[in-house]
Amino acid sequence: MMDYAALSALAEIIRRGSFEAAAAALGVTPSAVSQRIKGLEERLGQVLIHRGPPATGTETGLRLMQHLDQVRLLESTLAASLRPAGGPAVLRLAVNADSLATWFLPVLTALPLLYDLVVDDQDHARDWLRQGQVSGAISSEPVPVPGCDAIALGNMRYLALATPDFIARYFPDGVTEASLRTAPAIIFNAKDALQSRWVQLATGRRLHVPGHLIPASEPFARAVELGLGWGMIPETMAELALRAGRMQPLRPDLPLDVPLYWHVQRAMAPALAPLTAEIRKRAAADLRP
Amino acid sequence: MMDYAALSALAEIIRRGSFEAAAAALGVTPSAVSQRIKGLEERLGQVLIHRGPPATGTETGLRLMQHLDQVRLLESTLAASLRPAGGPAVLRLAVNADSLATWFLPVLTALPLLYDLVVDDQDHARDWLRQGQVSGAISSEPVPVPGCDAIALGNMRYLALATPDFIARYFPDGVTEASLRTAPAIIFNAKDALQSRWVQLATGRRLHVPGHLIPASEPFARAVELGLGWGMIPETMAELALRAGRMQPLRPDLPLDVPLYWHVQRAMAPALAPLTAEIRKRAAADLRP
Repeated sequence: MMDYAALSALAEIIRRGSFEAAAAALGVTPSAVSQRIKGLEERLGQVLIHRGPPATGTETGLRLMQHLDQVRLLESTLAASLRPAGGPAVLRLAVNADSLATWFLPVLTALPLLYDLVVDDQDHARDWLRQGQVSGAISSEPVPVPGCDAIALGNMRYLALATPDFIARYFPDGVTEASLRTAPAIIFNAKDALQSRWVQLATGRRLHVPGHLIPASEPFARAVELGLGWGMIPETMAELALRAGRMQPLRPDLPLDVPLYWHVQRAMAPALAPLTAEIRKRAAADLRP
Repeated sequence: MMDYAALSALAEIIRRGSFEAAAAALGVTPSAVSQRIKGLEERLGQVLIHRGPPATGTETGLRLMQHLDQVRLLESTLAASLRPAGGPAVLRLAVNADSLATWFLPVLTALPLLYDLVVDDQDHARDWLRQGQVSGAISSEPVPVPGCDAIALGNMRYLALATPDFIARYFPDGVTEASLRTAPAIIFNAKDALQSRWVQLATGRRLHVPGHLIPASEPFARAVELGLGWGMIPETMAELALRAGRMQPLRPDLPLDVPLYWHVQRAMAPALAPLTAEIRKRAAADLRP
């Protein structure tokens, strides 16, 4: 068996960013924490913590933390008479930023756990699952990674939006290759491909578009509303601004539908059944079929 | 002189995540991009790009990208008759998530640049400046890093909030050590120390509090409003919910004021003067003195 006292110390250090904070959380001395980690590292022959500050987990360290979380989660679903030992159950999930900003959050009330959310864009949330660092993920990738199932949830519809002033200034003759090469876009981060995909739909070509990088969903939408650029925004986030005329579609005839899937580790699926049911229910209500 | 064609290729690869996308953006072939990077790496004797996918910058690669951005920015402030060569000016800034979610965004309209925002928590945004990866940062750290100036902006006031139901369930006898050890908090990420600092103010002790990790400002506030936990929320984000009675302070007498500073590289300060003026103005209007 693994040394779960050492794993608990490891997880606390990674979640809290220092040996001292982990020691305080566990009610032991920092040197006890340090010895547990050192012992674990020696047994495994690998570094598990980058000492920092802040202290962060190595790839193997993060995998071990995830293993501990899963064991605790499984323990928490044992009969209530068997009180799970060793701390509250933590569920680590990867969620794409736009789902977190729109429909996802209320599903977390389905299970009385502590959640540790990792936020990434929809095309990459599944990578966290592949690396064994989360137990479930909301992602646009349809193909499950080994040991996981993927459940189709529906489509999130994106619109290419800008302010009326921005459209008058940069797109006086409509959406053309020339205008797209000049008009700044708002882009979530370097991995975000939604703008390029829409540009390809609109022009039939892969174009370079200049852009601001704003890696947070609501500020992204507000940057569009401030006239800093055009951007791909989920229709549910833009409703009010569209109705008030503060934003308009560049091409009302050209939305972009992104399918979303709930990827869940098969070993965890029974324990997570209430969460899966809630995710299906919310998605059915808020996404397009 | 540095090879700026190679640096431009480097920056495009890091911003776009692949050699192919960088080549398309620069209008050259992928093999030309690849040769430029190889040549630069050989001359410097260092790897500049982790090949991925996605392709990401090494520490040195990121520093070189930042250097290019600064040269372009300085070029863009030359007399308008000298058209800057080699792409639009990009300004990379580190901003704490709560500033981005509240007062910061409109300042970006002060200069006609492309912005590349890095989001971190207020205690760590300055680290990006120290590593030479950004030209400016909004941070709670008062001491400037070498080569930079720090300008005091005022205080962001945080309140420890929860729903009335949550308070009735977890804090029936007020905020005690025992209740704080049981009631789940909402925590931004492993580096976020606001909850611990407030707990120390409230109890005089450093306590371990259990918590959910939700690394996005608006979802963080909504998680509190959904009753998932208590959390430290900027008063300006909570106004509506407080007035409507959906959230309440755990201790109305105990806000936590976090001072914010604009850190800016001295070499860039003249070029960024209009941005600095707008940041001062917005901060004076939206933060507490």
